[in-house]
This record gives sequence, structure tokens and C-alpha cells, in this order.
Amino acid sequence: MSIQEDVRALCLAAREAVPSIANTDGEARNRALLAMSAALRARTAEILAANEDDLSRAEENGVPRVMLDRLRLSAERICGIATAMEALCALPDPLARSESWQRPSGLSITRQSVPLGVVAIIYEARPNVTADAAALCIKSGNAVVLRGGKEAIATNRAIVTVLQEAIAGCGIDPNAISLVTSTSRESADALLQMRGLVDALIPRGGKGLIQNCVENAKIPVIETGAGNCHVYVDAAANLDKALRVAVNAKCQRPSVCNAAESLLVHRDIAEAFLPRFAEATRPWQVELRGCPRTCAILPSAKPATEEDYLTEYNDFVMSVLVVDGLDEAIAHINRTGTGHSEAILTEDTAAAARFMQHVDAAAVYHNASTRFTDGGEFGFGAEIGISTQKLHARGPMGLEALTTVKYMVTGDGTVRE
Amino acid sequence: MSIQEDVRALCLAAREAVPSIANTDGEARNRALLAMSAALRARTAEILAANEDDLSRAEENGVPRVMLDRLRLSAERICGIATAMEALCALPDPLARSESWQRPSGLSITRQSVPLGVVAIIYEARPNVTADAAALCIKSGNAVVLRGGKEAIATNRAIVTVLQEAIAGCGIDPNAISLVTSTSRESADALLQMRGLVDALIPRGGKGLIQNCVENAKIPVIETGAGNCHVYVDAAANLDKALRVAVNAKCQRPSVCNAAESLLVHRDIAEAFLPRFAEATRPWQVELRGCPRTCAILPSAKPATEEDYLTEYNDFVMSVLVVDGLDEAIAHINRTGTGHSEAILTEDTAAAARFMQHVDAAAVYHNASTRFTDGGEFGFGAEIGISTQKLHARGPMGLEALTTVKYMVTGDGTVRE
Repeated sequence: MSIQEDVRALCLAAREAVPSIANTDGEARNRALLAMSAALRARTAEILAANEDDLSRAEENGVPRVMLDRLRLSAERICGIATAMEALCALPDPLARSESWQRPSGLSITRQSVPLGVVAIIYEARPNVTADAAALCIKSGNAVVLRGGKEAIATNRAIVTVLQEAIAGCGIDPNAISLVTSTSRESADALLQMRGLVDALIPRGGKGLIQNCVENAKIPVIETGAGNCHVYVDAAANLDKALRVAVNAKCQRPSVCNAAESLLVHRDIAEAFLPRFAEATRPWQVELRGCPRTCAILPSAKPATEEDYLTEYNDFVMSVLVVDGLDEAIAHINRTGTGHSEAILTEDTAAAARFMQHVDAAAVYHNASTRFTDGGEFGFGAEIGISTQKLHARGPMGLEALTTVKYMVTGDGTVRE
Repeated sequence: MSIQEDVRALCLAAREAVPSIANTDGEARNRALLAMSAALRARTAEILAANEDDLSRAEENGVPRVMLDRLRLSAERICGIATAMEALCALPDPLARSESWQRPSGLSITRQSVPLGVVAIIYEARPNVTADAAALCIKSGNAVVLRGGKEAIATNRAIVTVLQEAIAGCGIDPNAISLVTSTSRESADALLQMRGLVDALIPRGGKGLIQNCVENAKIPVIETGAGNCHVYVDAAANLDKALRVAVNAKCQRPSVCNAAESLLVHRDIAEAFLPRFAEATRPWQVELRGCPRTCAILPSAKPATEEDYLTEYNDFVMSVLVVDGLDEAIAHINRTGTGHSEAILTEDTAAAARFMQHVDAAAVYHNASTRFTDGGEFGFGAEIGISTQKLHARGPMGLEALTTVKYMVTGDGTVRE
């Protein structure tokens, strides 16, 4: 079979598995999650052996260290994944939401939450995503088609085998958790074409991967992840608070999408704030790339290009711009941002309200770090990704984002006049 | 300028108009709606004159009568459009929904409904859509980019001019209602590429138009409309009710997406039901295309092909299939349906529950006509279309479908540990 036919057969099998997972109650889905976590714990050695194969192949192929770190599993990490699955059981059943009403026509209408059906996830060489995404899909009654990065293929095969056997033991069709085993570019591209078989695609990974999915998919996509996030220090900022928040937003974990990439500073406060910020970020050797006014205040800063203001570094690098006022900050953010997370630091509540109203982003912050944009921090209990688009879901996506609705309408021979 | 540059400039102008409409309160938006409806009433003659131009050009070009009927406006139709705009004022403000909660981190989080931003509508030569879509977008705080069919271009220009002047008088940037005046295929295709400028595209029209948008858009699309809807007459149906509902679903208005296209009949009841159905639909001269068992019972039926069972006729034609039982009906519907509206006619509540649970469609009906799938009939007060996809919105879309959410987060120098 060609890769296209292979992928189609896999998606068809996943689609045929939908009734066995979609028509279960919340307790049955929780039992499946517990079986999955128990199987991961029991078969840790098997998974780690497969992971060793992936790691030694990746090392031979000169895969960069940061990617090796993401690829590497350990008994502790597998234990953490299993614990997270067990924690999912405690969350409310996302399929239990419904509301009903009557109409003058005599109809009784119920709007019921239901699974999406088949969810596809395209991601990079992070085997934890394999297990996490499968668990979230099972909890929400969906079948899942997983297509991970080629470096992790042996680990992904091992994890999916373990999980399939676990759900099969609970009476669920094992194809409800399916893995695309071809890791060529063609297999991802084939998945993007599966209209009628895949109900939603969630790409997770770097800019190139997401862009390819968004631009080429013929199936509905939920765009995630890109975060060119700003912190704006207003003229009325409390400098101590501002310093604490700006340093946290940049330095606490720079590799993630909700880390700040750009610092905007009101001109009235720039001379007071920028040297303190440069000093405070010194332990992390943050490279600052600034506008001419920034460079005049901070001789250590390098000149920034327009490209810098559009770049998500995911690293200890930050662009800096001194602005003439709030509205310039808002306009700059709306022009260069990715609609992820944007913060204003100020004691002026009117300025904060204007910023939060006019900045077009999933999450807007007043006197708090952009690093809080996260399903756990927001109290959602689980997260399948952070949407940077506006349709369906925006910001951190919990289990609800893996559901849709169905209208169930009852009459008694009722017709439309 | 090329058509691409033209469309980009128009979308950019619409984007720049967003703050002037997005940051208004519900009362200001209602005042704009009243100004729009008053202007339509006052300038009816101007719009009808433009419509006459379109109609005479269309007649010269041999445009079919059914399309001429959709293109034709009258003083009554314009009055109806204006009245619908006024009725929108009475609906709740879709931007007024919010919920707030506290987190252990000290953050206060508000989830606030906000406009999508710029909404594009691509549609056929139906000038009523121009005014209706503009009104729904203004009510929900969105800028709209309209791209209608070429036959209606003069009418659309006249309507948009009237509406732009009306909102400008209310302090809203007139580009919040923008019309793509090139009606070549290239202008629609250019609109599909406007990433970063258009937040959502809603195609409204026939299968070809929608398919082109879904397959080629690089911006988020809400798929609407295709309805290969089934009515299944179960063994335990009350034949009088079943007859009334099946006839209504097929004949009351066959040209619309929620009309039934296919009749499924349980074998145990086929001999009793089919002749009565053929008799009852005779006044509309409905052409029945059936399976061999149908043709054996109804000599007047023509043999159906596999293609018939996949076809949305939008006409007085219906495919008919005799099935061995409920599960065959469910499987047939899930294989051939478009996920729009599906009905079971039965007095067996267990069969009805199984049908409604297992059929994968936006709306599932027990003993009621598929014709009820409609924002007005569901009680939503307004409708921008009927979604047949699962992301963002499913089924009839009210004003809420034109909104997204924003998380507004307040701390006091709060950082993530």
C-alpha cells in the first residue's frame, strides 16, 4: 500500500472504533484511564528499552541535545505520565454537560456535549505527548490518531501497544488509539487530507510544523502554540513589582510559548527601569536587543531589527522597545504579537483596563507574568494545548475543547408549517 | 493594483476599523443597527434601481429563473430586512457574557466574550445576505468583509454604501462593513489567503462554493450548509405521524439544506408505509428513486444508484431504501449523511434513544421534521448559518458563534514559581 492508503486505512479503523469509546459512560472511560496508567507502570521496562533504541539512533544521527532531552524517558517520567492519567479520573466528565428547553412548536430540545469523533495530533519527538494526548482523548470519548516525530518512533510504538492492550481489556476497540507508523513527511501530509475521517487536527510543536498544518490541511485545525509575548512596563508601574514580573516572564522557563519575548517600556520610566532589568537578568545572561533609545540607556544592548520584534526566541534573548505611551504599546503588540499572552505592569487601573480591552490576545495580564497561560494554572485540570486562534477554543484548552454539541430534538409527529 | 493587493488593502482597512466597532457597548451597537435599518428604508428606491440593473444584466446573460428569484429585491423584501435588523436590537448582547474566578496563585481570572475581529462571508447572488450578515456582525462587534456573487454586484454596492454611511453617522469606521467589488474567482481565492487579517470565514452557498473555501482557505473556516438529511421510519412507527413528518421533511421547502433527501423504511413496515407515502407526495410530483425492495413495492419508483444515496437534490426527488433494522439505518446514515439533520419516526423510545445517540449529526430528531434545524425555530433569534462541522459551532449558529473569548487576568506583581 502507498503511504496515503496506509494512513487512510488507519484513519478508517480509528473512525470505526468511535462507537466503542463515544458511547461509554464517564465511569467506563475512567476505568480505561486507570487500566492505561497501570499498564504504563507495569511495562515501564519495555517502554524504556524502546526509548533506548530511539536515543542511540538519535545520538548517531547527531540530534541536538535539547531534542534528546525531550525524547528521553525515565522510570520517573513514565510514573509522572501515569499519575497524570490517574488525576484525569477526578475531573468532571466533559460529556455530561447538557441543557434543555421547550419551543412553542411543541419541540423539546436538548443541547448535549458529545465527543468530536476522531482527533488527530501531529507532534514532534516528545513521547510524553503520545500518552498524554491519548489519555485526554479517551477521557473525552474520542478516538485519536497520533503522528509523532520520527526520532521517537520506537518509543511511540511501545507506548501505543501498551495503551491499546489496556483499553482492549476494557472492551474498547484498540484502534481508538492509533499510531501512524510511517514518519515520512508524506504521512503527515496524507493525514491533513482525511476529510470525512478526521474531525479535528491539533498540531503541537514548532512554528514550521504548525504552519504546514494550518496552510495545507483540508480538515479543521486548531492552531496552537506560537507565542511572541510582550511585557509592557507603563509609566505608572511599581518598579519592584514590574521587575519581578518581567524577569519571571522572560527567565523562569524561556523555551515555552508563554514566556515573554519582548519588553516594552514607557519612555518616562525607561531610564529608571532598564538598567535594573539588565542587572536582574544578568544571572541568566539574557541578550537584550533594543531600539536606539534602549541602546542609549543600556550600552550592553545590541541593536534590534524589525525581525527581532517579530521573533519568538524561546531562549535567553529579548527584544526591547521604548515607547512614547500606552497606545503605541497597544498598537505595537497588535501588529507584532501572535495573540497569545500580553502583560501590562502599572498601578494605573484606567491604563490597565484600556490595555486589556484593546490588546487582541487569548490572555491579557495586569501585574502578572505571562507564564500563567496554562490549563493547570487557570484551573482547568488538564490541557491539550494553547489555542492562538479564535474559533472553537482560545487560550488554554481543557477537556471541553475536545467536545462538540449535538441537538437532540423530540416531538410527537411535529411538522414545520 | 492587482486583485490580490486590492483584497489585501480592503481587509487591512476592515482590520483597522475593528477597534471602532469592537470597543463599543451593546447600546451603541443597537443604535448602529437602527441607523442601518432606517437608512435601508429611506433609500429603498436607490437600492431597487441598482437591483434593476443587476436583474436586466442577469436576464440578458440567461441566468436561470431560480437564481433571478433570489437576486430580486422588492420594497417588501427590503422592509423585511430592515425589520429583522430592528428585531436584532432586542436580542441579548453577545459580548456581555463573562465569568470570573480566583486561583490559589492569587490571580483573578475573567473569561470574557469578545468579537472575533474581522469576519469574511463569501456567498452567492443573494443580496439579502449582504444586509443580514452585516447586521449580525455589527450586533456582535465584528467588522465584516463581504464577497457576494457577481450577478448582485450593483445591488451589493448600493446596500453597502447605504449601510456604511449609516454606521459612519454613529461614529463607527465605515470600513467595518466592507465589500469586495471584484467578483472574479481570483478575488474569492485572494480572500482565502488573508491570514492575520481575517479571523474567520463563513462560506454560504452551494456545494462547490463551500468545498472551494474549505479546501483552499488558509484562514479558519466555518463549514455550513450541506444537508443530505434522512428520515427513518422504524418498525414501531405510528404510520399517521410518520407520514405527516416524512412529507413535511421532503415537501414543505425542498430547496433548503434541512429538507429530507432520503427515506429509510424498516422492512416490516415498508409494504404498509411506502404506498401511502407515494400517494401523499403525489401533489408535489416527488420522484422516488428506490432500492430493489422499494421498487418491488412501488412500481412507480425508479431504481436508485449509490450516487443517489449521496446526493442532496434540493428538489422534489428522494432516494428510498428499505433496511433490515435500526442498526442498518444508523450505519447507512453515518456513511452517507452530511452530519446535518436526521430523524427517526417510532413509538419505541429505546430505538429512538439508540438512534439519537449513535447517529453523528448536528441535530437528531425523534418524531419531528428535519425542517426545524434553524436558528429561529431553535429559539436563537438570529442565524448566520448552519454549521455542519464540529469545531467552534455545530448546527444553527446564533450571535454567539460570531464571538470568541479573552482571558483577562489580574495579579499584584504575581509570578510563576
